[in-house]
Amino acid sequence: MAAGLQVFGQPASTDVARVLTCLFEKKLEFELVRIDTFKTHHKLPEFIRLRDPNGQVTFKHGDKTLVDSRDICRYVCNQFPNDGNKTLYGSGALERASIEQWLQAEAQNFGPPSSALVFQLAFVPHLSHLGVRQDHAVIAENEDKLKQILDVYDEILSKNEYLAGDEFTLADLSHLPNSHYIVNTERGRKLFTNKKNVAKWYDKISKRETWAQVVKMQKEHPGAFE
Amino acid sequence: MAAGLQVFGQPASTDVARVLTCLFEKKLEFELVRIDTFKTHHKLPEFIRLRDPNGQVTFKHGDKTLVDSRDICRYVCNQFPNDGNKTLYGSGALERASIEQWLQAEAQNFGPPSSALVFQLAFVPHLSHLGVRQDHAVIAENEDKLKQILDVYDEILSKNEYLAGDEFTLADLSHLPNSHYIVNTERGRKLFTNKKNVAKWYDKISKRETWAQVVKMQKEHPGAFE
Repeated sequence: MAAGLQVFGQPASTDVARVLTCLFEKKLEFELVRIDTFKTHHKLPEFIRLRDPNGQVTFKHGDKTLVDSRDICRYVCNQFPNDGNKTLYGSGALERASIEQWLQAEAQNFGPPSSALVFQLAFVPHLSHLGVRQDHAVIAENEDKLKQILDVYDEILSKNEYLAGDEFTLADLSHLPNSHYIVNTERGRKLFTNKKNVAKWYDKISKRETWAQVVKMQKEHPGAFE
Repeated sequence: MAAGLQVFGQPASTDVARVLTCLFEKKLEFELVRIDTFKTHHKLPEFIRLRDPNGQVTFKHGDKTLVDSRDICRYVCNQFPNDGNKTLYGSGALERASIEQWLQAEAQNFGPPSSALVFQLAFVPHLSHLGVRQDHAVIAENEDKLKQILDVYDEILSKNEYLAGDEFTLADLSHLPNSHYIVNTERGRKLFTNKKNVAKWYDKISKRETWAQVVKMQKEHPGAFE
């Protein structure tokens, strides 16, 4: 597999999940290399380490190595335009420009508050035995930021079925990993369900077969010595 | 992790399962490197490939590389006599000689018929859509062989609690991976439950926490494009 595609990382990482979803959408053959470390003593429970939202991803294609999950998605779509989902990165220059704007909005605006909420709402509750507690000021501040962002999304999704138009693209895909962890907490879910168009959109994109497959993989973890 | 312990393979492989159980018993820190290949088209369903009873295992410790699962278990016990389960490979020369006899009996006598039954009883039923059918002559022949072997085991287990004496050792551990797949089929289960002492012994060794952990890991598989 000299020029094959390889992904190194844990599906539970949001960056890895983004890349896997893209590869499944493109129906490409690839290898996933997962390295699980089994230790008798952990500072952090293993499942938290595996689910670290900042967990890195490394992608190799022949001699090419990339580490940014959104760059990897762009690269995969550019390199393999005719595989699987052909419109994932748009089918024309105008569409691509719109998707690109959303990819950047996700990375720069949606990413920081949503990552903070993933950590505070989804992970910290599992760390109470280590003395880690939720920071309610941080939660409130990031909820406010995310609400404002999702207001804009709701407006746009009242006109379009998906963020960049009427098809599912990288723009939508890129939002799945963080949204998933937030929506699966009681408090976080409301941020999405309170907005009619966002709720409908999230429901639709999270039901894609490719994403369901990644969620299934996220639930797998070695679990030894947890 | 220059001189760390690394295992390359899938937990569902019986050889990998043997090595993982040994490492868990010895409570050693190690890395498990799993490479999952995602393909759109398979000759064999992915979960069969992952569960191939003949799936190889590779073990690395610094510069040392080993590929035979029983040799790896011996090596681990010799290298780390004072970690975890200290009597896994015996506590004296006489005990070790007895364990060694059982390890060889498992590899040479128990292994071949039990591997044939693992394939025929546990795997072939999942391959019917590929036109693969159970070979009833092969099943009957290997059942007969295994019955004769388990008669001897039953006799010995009427005197000892475990194969090589009154403690759980590599002798018992080594039998777990194949036995597990056989016992989890309706037809195979009877081979073990029909013999009182074998049944009691298998029940006890299969309930060990370390083995339960490996079984849990075996149930994880990527499942994409199954």
